[in-house]
Amino acid sequence: MKTLKTQVAIIGAGPSGLLLGQLLHKAGIDTLILERQTPDYVLGRIRAGVLEQGMVDLLRQAGVSQRMDAEGLVHGGFELALDGRRVAIDLHALTGGKSVTIYGQTEVTRDLMQARQAVGARTLYQADNVRPHDMQSDQPYLTFDYQGEPHRLDCDYIAGCDGFHGVARQSIPADKLKVFERVYPFGWLGILADTPPVHDELVYARHERGFALCSMRSATRTRYYLQVPAEENVADWSDQRFWDELKKRLPEELAERLVTGPSIEKSIAPLRSFVVEPMQYGRMFLVGDAAHIVPPTGAKGLNLAASDVSTLFNILLKVYREQRTDLLQKYSEICLRRIWKAERFSWWMTAMLHRFPDSDDFSQRIAESELAYFVDSEAGRKTIAENYVGLPYEAIE
Amino acid sequence: MKTLKTQVAIIGAGPSGLLLGQLLHKAGIDTLILERQTPDYVLGRIRAGVLEQGMVDLLRQAGVSQRMDAEGLVHGGFELALDGRRVAIDLHALTGGKSVTIYGQTEVTRDLMQARQAVGARTLYQADNVRPHDMQSDQPYLTFDYQGEPHRLDCDYIAGCDGFHGVARQSIPADKLKVFERVYPFGWLGILADTPPVHDELVYARHERGFALCSMRSATRTRYYLQVPAEENVADWSDQRFWDELKKRLPEELAERLVTGPSIEKSIAPLRSFVVEPMQYGRMFLVGDAAHIVPPTGAKGLNLAASDVSTLFNILLKVYREQRTDLLQKYSEICLRRIWKAERFSWWMTAMLHRFPDSDDFSQRIAESELAYFVDSEAGRKTIAENYVGLPYEAIE
Repeated sequence: MKTLKTQVAIIGAGPSGLLLGQLLHKAGIDTLILERQTPDYVLGRIRAGVLEQGMVDLLRQAGVSQRMDAEGLVHGGFELALDGRRVAIDLHALTGGKSVTIYGQTEVTRDLMQARQAVGARTLYQADNVRPHDMQSDQPYLTFDYQGEPHRLDCDYIAGCDGFHGVARQSIPADKLKVFERVYPFGWLGILADTPPVHDELVYARHERGFALCSMRSATRTRYYLQVPAEENVADWSDQRFWDELKKRLPEELAERLVTGPSIEKSIAPLRSFVVEPMQYGRMFLVGDAAHIVPPTGAKGLNLAASDVSTLFNILLKVYREQRTDLLQKYSEICLRRIWKAERFSWWMTAMLHRFPDSDDFSQRIAESELAYFVDSEAGRKTIAENYVGLPYEAIE
Repeated sequence: MKTLKTQVAIIGAGPSGLLLGQLLHKAGIDTLILERQTPDYVLGRIRAGVLEQGMVDLLRQAGVSQRMDAEGLVHGGFELALDGRRVAIDLHALTGGKSVTIYGQTEVTRDLMQARQAVGARTLYQADNVRPHDMQSDQPYLTFDYQGEPHRLDCDYIAGCDGFHGVARQSIPADKLKVFERVYPFGWLGILADTPPVHDELVYARHERGFALCSMRSATRTRYYLQVPAEENVADWSDQRFWDELKKRLPEELAERLVTGPSIEKSIAPLRSFVVEPMQYGRMFLVGDAAHIVPPTGAKGLNLAASDVSTLFNILLKVYREQRTDLLQKYSEICLRRIWKAERFSWWMTAMLHRFPDSDDFSQRIAESELAYFVDSEAGRKTIAENYVGLPYEAIE
């Protein structure tokens, strides 16, 4: 058995593990990342593309913002299309100057991988059978197989950045975690296409046929989504059928100017809300999807991972620099305050904009009235805008 | 059969019928009110006591505000007590100077009865078997029994101000109405007592034992409520049991200073949301509870009746003065826009502050997070405040 050593062991080389690693490395704290997949596999995941100001700032702090600053699209607003009525949510005006940045998760990951390689920090890809041990002790460690050999990694702390299906959360005894969950009775059918966006901002459309989202990755690459029944089969959706259905759900002016084209990727994702409490177990800390999932309406998933990274990084900084080990036990509660508000917003956006197959007439009218009130009232629009750009990060003191 | 004649026949001498009658009388339009009960019975109903600015203005316009202006308590805020945490909602600051007035519905009714008597306008009390006829024609009329004799009342228009159980809505063919309804799995146990209020503003308390409300009628008369199961029996609640339970649900500082005393009235009211669409049928118009019910959380019931009265009055004024009969068909849609927003707010306040016996863990946390977000955010507090003081009335043009 080969033994390695680091200060902070990170499970998972997705954007949260890499971002945490980069921030810690810049602060002089040693990290080692273990990733089950290959770099290409990690880069192949098509995910979110809307970055909150807080995440943009964090990427700048980590020194990996050069390409994002050059190529990312800064959006000062988005649009709601409510049964044909177009409502502009002016993020910039409603939040005193804040905005979001359109830059794909794949690109964030690529930038972080290159930055990590450039500084020579260690990432072991295709590390198999990763298992955390002795998390409740002062000497936790991980075991794993790498290049055919069993390994052991000794560390001070473990960051579980390995996503919803990862080993970190599953290594915590079930009776130590409380699970909160909501599964929605529909999914999102998404396609990626090399076509110009139908509108220069994102459009979230509520329609009696179901929700639709017009998103983009760049000025020439678009990402569109349709609400479909949870049990839908992607093979039943030709490109033509997708474009036809999308046009029906958009306001006429947008449908008319929609440019269609062959899809590069097409897939169906289920929608789920999920949170475990607490997000820590001894010296292991859960980050991002390992601890919580939001439905994609509202674009909060990656951004929540970033705020967990910020919280854990700032706590570890004070632990190593000022011996503030008292802060460690606060990680979960600090994260959860912000997470639950984002879970609430994501649930609300989902509930407001989708058709629920089992919704009664009263609930239907309440949802319509809720949206009508929130978009007609300036205070209402402010609540949408300030959640969309992201609630502030809590200071670690 | 004795035949009477008027311009606007009003069914019901509660606050909405009387207020509509007073406004029309002042404008020179003749009305006759038919009421099934005696004046004393009408005055015996203990109801709401929080008047929005819009209703206060309407009572002034009707010339019946003298006693309300002298005796009503102007409240510039209210308090939320969230599992012990006290949060002030500063209505005045959050809405640019608006407030609510605490003045019992019984007092409003008494003032309106006296004003109607003073101007010599006709109200027939104990009118039995009231039935509207030919509502779809240009000559609608009512039949009823009065002092043992059958009567007929010819009129131009009929206003159904006779409440949820009244004859007006029930006279519309069922297939012409769409019903929206939600029944809540709990009721409010209320008591009236001659004790000084525990706090100078209303306190809405969310607690794991259930919702509680500290309200008042004056500086010496209080009204307190407890959430109880829907099937609860009022006989099981001694005054002592009521006060003991109330203290458990209030923040400690308030519980300690609560002054208890014998109850003058004690009753349990069910909670219901209810709307029918449309609110008109030919020349008959439904006003207030005849068309819609809200749960009392948020104090919207009487205020919604007042805004219906305002809409109907302003339409009839233009009909009689400017022959704008085109406006008549817009009554329902104008009313419903504001009603649904108030239904939404009342539903939301109810959902946020009560314990739902069948709520799952996720819904519970979402409700806590929603409240935490809305009270922590200034925009969120503004949405609560602007709904509580009442959304603006629509202009009739």
